[in-house]
Order: sequence, then structure tokens, then C-alpha cells
Amino acid sequence: MPRRLSAVLSPAEALPSAVTALVVDVIRATTTAAFLLDGGARELVLTAEVAQARAEARQRGALLAGERGGLPPEGFDLGNSPREVHPGRVRGRTVVMTTTNGTRAAVRAAVAAERVGLAALVNVGAAVRWAAARGGDVVLVAAGREGRAALDDAYALGALVARFRGLEPDARLDDGARLAQALFLAHPDPRPLLQSSAAAAALAQVGLAADVEVCARTDALAVLPELAAREGAALRFRPVYPKGV
Amino acid sequence: MPRRLSAVLSPAEALPSAVTALVVDVIRATTTAAFLLDGGARELVLTAEVAQARAEARQRGALLAGERGGLPPEGFDLGNSPREVHPGRVRGRTVVMTTTNGTRAAVRAAVAAERVGLAALVNVGAAVRWAAARGGDVVLVAAGREGRAALDDAYALGALVARFRGLEPDARLDDGARLAQALFLAHPDPRPLLQSSAAAAALAQVGLAADVEVCARTDALAVLPELAAREGAALRFRPVYPKGV
Repeated sequence: MPRRLSAVLSPAEALPSAVTALVVDVIRATTTAAFLLDGGARELVLTAEVAQARAEARQRGALLAGERGGLPPEGFDLGNSPREVHPGRVRGRTVVMTTTNGTRAAVRAAVAAERVGLAALVNVGAAVRWAAARGGDVVLVAAGREGRAALDDAYALGALVARFRGLEPDARLDDGARLAQALFLAHPDPRPLLQSSAAAAALAQVGLAADVEVCARTDALAVLPELAAREGAALRFRPVYPKGV
Repeated sequence: MPRRLSAVLSPAEALPSAVTALVVDVIRATTTAAFLLDGGARELVLTAEVAQARAEARQRGALLAGERGGLPPEGFDLGNSPREVHPGRVRGRTVVMTTTNGTRAAVRAAVAAERVGLAALVNVGAAVRWAAARGGDVVLVAAGREGRAALDDAYALGALVARFRGLEPDARLDDGARLAQALFLAHPDPRPLLQSSAAAAALAQVGLAADVEVCARTDALAVLPELAAREGAALRFRPVYPKGV
């Protein structure tokens, strides 16, 4: 029986259980996560709260990254911008990262699925190869925004669905997957679509509009951040480089 | 300032407050509601529970309509099929109706908005004329399915957004409205899109696949079911026939 490919567009919805989950917060957490590991960071630790991120970073001797309201909290080494990631700064380091929506989605995914990866447009091919390499149902989880479905995440879910169907034309799509795929297929160029999202508008308000173009670079990176372990309330991800299937 | 037009695709999401709400359960509750009032029913009373529907119908001397699992509960006069609605049967009558998702969405909308209408593809033009005739923010509320966003409802929300923008090009869309509109614009013919939904698949399993084609008849009806009163846990709707704006 072909596998089921579900897409949960709204962070308010319950996740179906699955073998594999891909978590998407395309503007910007999962994009930046991919850039951090591609830039040579050894591992990435996600936490939900700022205080917890500070404690984890102290304990691990790690760099501290993330945002509240789009900007880095006081004392953080990095924000949540993929443009800040320079290999010279992150290579070999552990990075502790806290973001508003992406971390929450990853925590939920880790409950619903056996294995969890972080996906964005920049690593859509790597994410799909990784997910397809093992059998069983796949769920795509959008981080969303303020408890609602977000246009940018829905679009990236659609890109993942379309690419997955390219590998496995018989995969059974749920309504969410069909909806996301239709959005993606109608907009071959991600840039104007991402630019029209509420997330892009919020970035423009804090002077980070240029991040959106980076988030739109489909297949720029070959890395997939894969959940290696839950450590208390923190999620530790390591880089993997999925081969073609 | 141009008004805000929001579309809430998932029944799990909180509704923003608005002056006007349009509730959509295109397969089939709001389609059937429009057919009932177009067919001459005097009013329509929505209830969430079957037992409550029976009590309301007894008390009001009303016809009893609705579904559980797609089929009419025992002793009901009508199911939830627009094809069952014959003017000879419903003219002048009050109809009490209970459906799984549509009623719940209408109850939520009645809390969030001052005025509530029921919209589907069959009355998309009437619904938009009614909503646009008064100022203030508008929220489009999808009933969804099993707590998740549904493809058919998202498409109908997109039809409403596109039509609304035709009247008011400056209306400010949220991410949900943009997502729904993109789905609609990519599929000018509603039939294959609705047919691919989980709701259509469920209808086919109970022998009601032919309902879907009726739900796809855009602008077939000029009626808008408008919330007249909340009466305890029941919502009473009356027919209005919005003129052009």
C-alpha cells in the first residue's frame, strides 16, 4: 500500500502519527537551521524558551541564536537570520537556538513521529530524499504564525509534496497536502509568494526584508537537520546529507 | 482605511473578531442550507446535537434535516443532500438542521462577529454582496473536516476572496485569504478540485457522490441565509436576497 503523505498547515491542528515528520518554518527558523549546519556547526539544539536557551548554551559552551519579535534577545551571539551565518563563526560549534514558532512545531513533531527533520525551501531536495529513504507515513508540519496557518510555510509544504510525488507518484495525499501542492504549483517563483506573506511583512518592519530572498533559494543546500535526541526539553539536531533514492 | 478580509481555513484556529462572518461548509451543509431557503423554507434552525435537533423540531413543528457520517439519523425527514430539497416539500416550513462541522463553525462565528451568513459556491455572489454592503472587517470561516482544514472549504473561501477583491480591490488580505485565493485562481473549474477532496471521497462511500456536482454550481442561487437570532443553543437563519452593490 502506498504511503500516506499528510500536510498540517495550521499549528492549531493535531498531528497525525507518522514514521517521519518534516518541520517547516521557512521564514526563518528551519532555513537558518539548515544554514547553520551547512556552515559547519556540529549540532543544533532547539529550545522553546529564552531562559532555557541561555542555560543550555552556558552548559554546552555553545553559541546562542534565535529571536523574539524577529530580533535577537540581549546577549545572543546570533539572531535568526540566515544572512548572519558565516562558516568562520559557527564551524565546529554547537548552536543553541530558540525561535517563536519553529521550536514549538519541532517539539510537537517529536511526539507524533519516530524521526524528525527540519525542512525549508533551501533544502527541499535533501529533505524529500531523507524522508523517502525510509518507509511509512510522512507528515509535513508547518510552524505557522500566531497560531494560524502561514502562507510561506504552506508554500514550502507544497514544494515538499510536489517533490515527494515526483519520487513516489502513488503516495496518498490528504486535503492539506493537496491544498499546499496547489499553492506551490500555481507559483513557480517562490519570491513574490514569500514576499506577500505576513512573515515577510513583519521582517520588513524590523529591517530584515533581505532575509526573505535567502529563504527563497530552493535547493541551495544539501543538508538535512535530523533530530538526534531529546534532552529534557531541548531537541538536539545533527547534520545529515541524504543521498539520491 | 480599507477593511481587513481574513480567511480561517482550519476549525482548530481561533477566529479574529469581525463585523461580518461568512461560514462555509461547501460539502455540504451551507450548500444545502442555501438550497433549503431558495426552495421556500421560511427559516432554518441549526443545532449542534442530534437530540437537540429532534427537540427543536418537535417544539417548532419543523422538518428535521441533517447527517451523521453523511447519512440522515433515524426519523429525520431529510439528510444533508442538496438533491433532496424539493420546493413542494420545504416551502413555508421551518427546517431544523444538524450537521457535523457546519453547525459548529456557525456557532463559533456567532461569537466572533456581529452578523453571520452561510456561504457556499452556489451563493458566492449573494454572499459577497451581502458582506460588502456593510463596513467593517470580514472573516471567512471554513468548517473543515475532523478538526482539520478541508480542501473544498478552502477553495470556496478562495472564491469568496477573489469575488470580494473584485468589489474592493484595496481590501487587506491575511495569509489565509491569500492562500485560499491562490487555490481558487489556480482551479477555474471547481468540479475536479472538489472531487479530489476527502469530503467527496466520504460521500462516494455512502453512495452520494452526485452531491458534489451540485455543490460545485457556482452562483446557482441568489439567497443568503442570514443569522436572525440565537435561541438558546440553536441558531435561526432567515433568507435574504442581497442586491448588487
